[in-house]
Amino acid sequence: MTRSRHRVVIENVYPEIDGGRFPVKRTVGQSVEVKADIHTDGHDMIAAFLMYREEGSSAWSETPMIPKGNDRWAGTFRVTAVGRAVYTLHAWIARFLTWQRDLGKKMEAGQEISVDLLVGALLAEDASKRAKGPDRRKLLAFARSIRPGEGRTVPECATAAVDEALGELADRYPDRSLATGYGRELQVVVDPQRARFSAWYELFPRSASREPGRHGTFKDVAERLPQVASMGFDVLYLPPIHPIGRTNRKGRNNATVAGRDDVGSPWAIGAAEGGHKSVHPQLGTLEEFEELVRSARDRGIETAMDIAFQCAPDHPYVKEHPEWFRMRPDGTVQYAENPPKKYEDIIPFDFDTPHWLELWEELKSIVLFWAGRGVRIFRVDNPHTKPFAFWEWLIAEVKREHPDAIFLAEAFTRPKVMYRLAKAGFTQSYTYFSWRNTKPELEAYFRELTQTEVREFFRPNLWPNTPDILTEQLQYGGRPVFMARLVLAATLGASYGIYGPPFELCEHAATAPGKEEYLDSEKYQIRTWDTDRPDSLREFISLVNRIRRESPPLQADDNLRFHEVDNDQLIAYSKAAEDRSGTILVVVNLDPRHTQSGWVELPLGEFGLDPAAPFQGHDLLSGARFLWQGRRFYVELDPFVVPAHIIRLRRRVRTEKDFDYFM
Amino acid sequence: MTRSRHRVVIENVYPEIDGGRFPVKRTVGQSVEVKADIHTDGHDMIAAFLMYREEGSSAWSETPMIPKGNDRWAGTFRVTAVGRAVYTLHAWIARFLTWQRDLGKKMEAGQEISVDLLVGALLAEDASKRAKGPDRRKLLAFARSIRPGEGRTVPECATAAVDEALGELADRYPDRSLATGYGRELQVVVDPQRARFSAWYELFPRSASREPGRHGTFKDVAERLPQVASMGFDVLYLPPIHPIGRTNRKGRNNATVAGRDDVGSPWAIGAAEGGHKSVHPQLGTLEEFEELVRSARDRGIETAMDIAFQCAPDHPYVKEHPEWFRMRPDGTVQYAENPPKKYEDIIPFDFDTPHWLELWEELKSIVLFWAGRGVRIFRVDNPHTKPFAFWEWLIAEVKREHPDAIFLAEAFTRPKVMYRLAKAGFTQSYTYFSWRNTKPELEAYFRELTQTEVREFFRPNLWPNTPDILTEQLQYGGRPVFMARLVLAATLGASYGIYGPPFELCEHAATAPGKEEYLDSEKYQIRTWDTDRPDSLREFISLVNRIRRESPPLQADDNLRFHEVDNDQLIAYSKAAEDRSGTILVVVNLDPRHTQSGWVELPLGEFGLDPAAPFQGHDLLSGARFLWQGRRFYVELDPFVVPAHIIRLRRRVRTEKDFDYFM
Repeated sequence: MTRSRHRVVIENVYPEIDGGRFPVKRTVGQSVEVKADIHTDGHDMIAAFLMYREEGSSAWSETPMIPKGNDRWAGTFRVTAVGRAVYTLHAWIARFLTWQRDLGKKMEAGQEISVDLLVGALLAEDASKRAKGPDRRKLLAFARSIRPGEGRTVPECATAAVDEALGELADRYPDRSLATGYGRELQVVVDPQRARFSAWYELFPRSASREPGRHGTFKDVAERLPQVASMGFDVLYLPPIHPIGRTNRKGRNNATVAGRDDVGSPWAIGAAEGGHKSVHPQLGTLEEFEELVRSARDRGIETAMDIAFQCAPDHPYVKEHPEWFRMRPDGTVQYAENPPKKYEDIIPFDFDTPHWLELWEELKSIVLFWAGRGVRIFRVDNPHTKPFAFWEWLIAEVKREHPDAIFLAEAFTRPKVMYRLAKAGFTQSYTYFSWRNTKPELEAYFRELTQTEVREFFRPNLWPNTPDILTEQLQYGGRPVFMARLVLAATLGASYGIYGPPFELCEHAATAPGKEEYLDSEKYQIRTWDTDRPDSLREFISLVNRIRRESPPLQADDNLRFHEVDNDQLIAYSKAAEDRSGTILVVVNLDPRHTQSGWVELPLGEFGLDPAAPFQGHDLLSGARFLWQGRRFYVELDPFVVPAHIIRLRRRVRTEKDFDYFM
Repeated sequence: MTRSRHRVVIENVYPEIDGGRFPVKRTVGQSVEVKADIHTDGHDMIAAFLMYREEGSSAWSETPMIPKGNDRWAGTFRVTAVGRAVYTLHAWIARFLTWQRDLGKKMEAGQEISVDLLVGALLAEDASKRAKGPDRRKLLAFARSIRPGEGRTVPECATAAVDEALGELADRYPDRSLATGYGRELQVVVDPQRARFSAWYELFPRSASREPGRHGTFKDVAERLPQVASMGFDVLYLPPIHPIGRTNRKGRNNATVAGRDDVGSPWAIGAAEGGHKSVHPQLGTLEEFEELVRSARDRGIETAMDIAFQCAPDHPYVKEHPEWFRMRPDGTVQYAENPPKKYEDIIPFDFDTPHWLELWEELKSIVLFWAGRGVRIFRVDNPHTKPFAFWEWLIAEVKREHPDAIFLAEAFTRPKVMYRLAKAGFTQSYTYFSWRNTKPELEAYFRELTQTEVREFFRPNLWPNTPDILTEQLQYGGRPVFMARLVLAATLGASYGIYGPPFELCEHAATAPGKEEYLDSEKYQIRTWDTDRPDSLREFISLVNRIRRESPPLQADDNLRFHEVDNDQLIAYSKAAEDRSGTILVVVNLDPRHTQSGWVELPLGEFGLDPAAPFQGHDLLSGARFLWQGRRFYVELDPFVVPAHIIRLRRRVRTEKDFDYFM
């Protein structure tokens, strides 16, 4: 049993993921509020400090922790550079402050204190010996001023002794050998802002051509950029752009046999033309891809690349590295299966291979290859079918060279697996949002994501649809559902995305009842889209994205709060700015068929609003302004007009014309 | 970044106190249910095992973990020897079971499986190579039986292949280099049963004489033993038995100046006659004390000794080791204070002394001295005024030699401090029970103690009164409050205690209104008690303790459940046996002045009772039997008769006369 004379205890630190095994996540400029139980035996007072530094730096900064009651302390620091930051805590007995407190009590009780003053003078002298420069001089003078004698009376010394600032100064120079360090350095991954706040637009490059039947190219995609930018998206996500396998190629609508002209699934990667580091010849050249990445960036759009670590049977790897795949006793390579389903056009890597180290290195080299071509965002296909340890290593390795890299995990699987992938390093994660439709479902799920420890490591990215997911709601609910799901995704989540153009064109035909597969899915064929159709949701989407950009509260997740509405078809929630400078209130009608109305109840005090004064709600979707007073107000939403309000709350200042922008 | 090919993840293990920093607590014969999130990438099945051993042993036992849904697994082991046990987990991909599951699905879908059978045969062969003896032979035969050919048809092999027991056997011999160990060995402190289930009786030996005015002795205490035993107590706790200081001795009722005959506070330890290893001469000799310990043990009673690490000014330590105390600049020794309060008869040790190592060793030698004289239970006075690290070391050191030692922490302080002391090693702890009077207070506090992680390390010991605590309730509530508080203490807690004879004699006079100090407290003077008074609660206490001994459910804490009653003055709760073999239901009237009645609502299903069948409630206090049916039943309690029911629930079998003892 080790003996220690450190009397202060630091425990129950938050945030701390799995005992410090995993980092928490922040974006540049955000703060980290650290809480801990800090206490000691007896009645002594404590000084506690939060220490932090950038990972590469050896110089710690520190900021005081403040007691919040019941031995809970809190302190905050801000992360300022992309990369990693580190924090820890230390604390010690505040001997001088303790002495000051006790002296005060004795003075109040009229007790004799001359010996106590001598004790305090010695404590201050001790502290001065550990201080340097001006602090040392200040403490020496302080010690002298509280020692009775040489013309100083006891009352004079007592008055000098209770100076709080000097007491705190004395306790900044404790006997460090008695100070308790927390013992663990906890990590923060600091990402660029886009990791927190992003609007994604997914499109199939091969469908980007405007001429029906012609295979789209990177140049066609570049021509789509103004439209994507005008809709307000800042990430353009392209499904795999590599050569597509021919062996066992899937036909239209996932037919097991492909026709002569069928283009195959882009996720069946690799053919004679090359593999994961090559570009599909019909899309263009590597240089044209790099040109697309650059011109997107010029418009404020980052290109997200699909990382699907799997091979078509004719991927060069299969011949060159058969040791990376599982062989069957009949000499064939094991294709992907989830019995009884078979995916004969896909061959998974065998992560149990004895040659795993070479395999890992090669897969890392793929990501670095594209990072070298300017890509900074990677949407990872099915990460949950590869080992967690592999991702933890790969993401850390890539971020060592490109700390601004962003990885989105496309794992639609069991909750603990999804959370573990996020802990292992994924910057953002797909969610169950697509299938959460009712008010209780949405509230329970988003409380879990935003009001538990999950929020420290799991950044949701909400998708109403994807090429794999055409939900029943979207199939049968019509335009009102597309609008409502867009508003929910764009306001419940700081990051969200749509798969377009099917989304804005309200494409809703599925392969069969009960299936979530798009009919004539772009996964297996080229489609031509008339994005200028008058019934497109383009304008509505542009408006919602503009509201997001102009509303800082919508650019965070952890500020989400749900509110009571006396109608189960109406969901209401708000997001307040970190500095409490403003609040956005969202109300959505979840019923795509009927106008719904109800009373929303708001905690006005929490919003900084006076329940006794009128305030204005400005609906940023309709432009309408409402004048309200009191904590309950009435809403009515017709799904065939706009099924949602996105309301900026304003405080009235003097007259009805004179409103203070509440944000 | 370390690379690892272990694909299975083990996380969120319960119980695990502060990341394994502290042990959990059990008593001999109890079980430890361990839960963990265990999962892996992809769709593979998992085999997981809980491993455990006694700390001294190098041989692990293991028991399978069972999946409970949502990737949560659970397994249980039993601790069988006083001391420490250790547990950890390991898990791996169950390749064979995965293969069996997939084979089953393929067979159902009518797919061709001959190559799959070959795969399975190879897997079984692989496993056989890692097995030994009969298991090896079984697996080899199994491998042969599922390989088509040599006269075996595919359907025959398929039938053989899905044998679940053989599948499990194969997965007991995995490639261990791919198995995930949890990485931490978690500890269990295993105490004797008395650590969990005990009834304490505190008395002042110097008041044990039956002749008014004569200083009691160990022999007088020995004569009291039959009475204590007949009341059903199994721990006799004596305040300090050491020589009492004379300098600054306190007089009756805590007077600052003692009279010539005043005996002083036993907690002012040490005088010319000796210190912490000596016996107060007026109580008897060390040998007589040892004789008392032995004769108590003969009656099933353990003697608990008071450990108060502090000194009277004339304690020999003060002269011999001035370096263990804090000196004031005027050359005096710093006495105890909590400004503006002063305790001039007490001098605390200075745990910040540079000579702390010598001090720690000396204090340890005190406990070992008494352990050497047969004492196994130590009630530690004010442990929260000494460093946590000191207790952690001292208790571990003592338990290394005396693993059956029990330490009760008398810390009435802030919750996190109390919990930290328990984590640091205290076997049992005083609680806030004394001041929890209303139903919401009692329910909230006991839910915290028994239904959160606290229950893994903090064992409550409930005291309605102590020499320091005569609560307002006891002062003004009369006999009904004494009875109600006794029942609450004895049934809410598996361990409880009373300070007698004042408790059973319903002594209720305080020094002043608003004070919790007994008038003419035994802390400062000798008292003579007529324990044979007809109004003594002795018989009632005997009955309650007998019920406790005969009712296994009352001998645990973590089985406590509260139940709804439609009257705030009635509190209802139950404790079920670990094996669900029986249930005790308690209802207490918290109002000492009025009969209260109400309807209690029971979750009959949880009790194993049929809501449609009548069942019997047998009130073990009154002997009354009630025949009930349905989940609600009526109770009425007159505080002037008995303010409580302690009901054993029985299930009816056939006729009204034919009840099955439900426990």
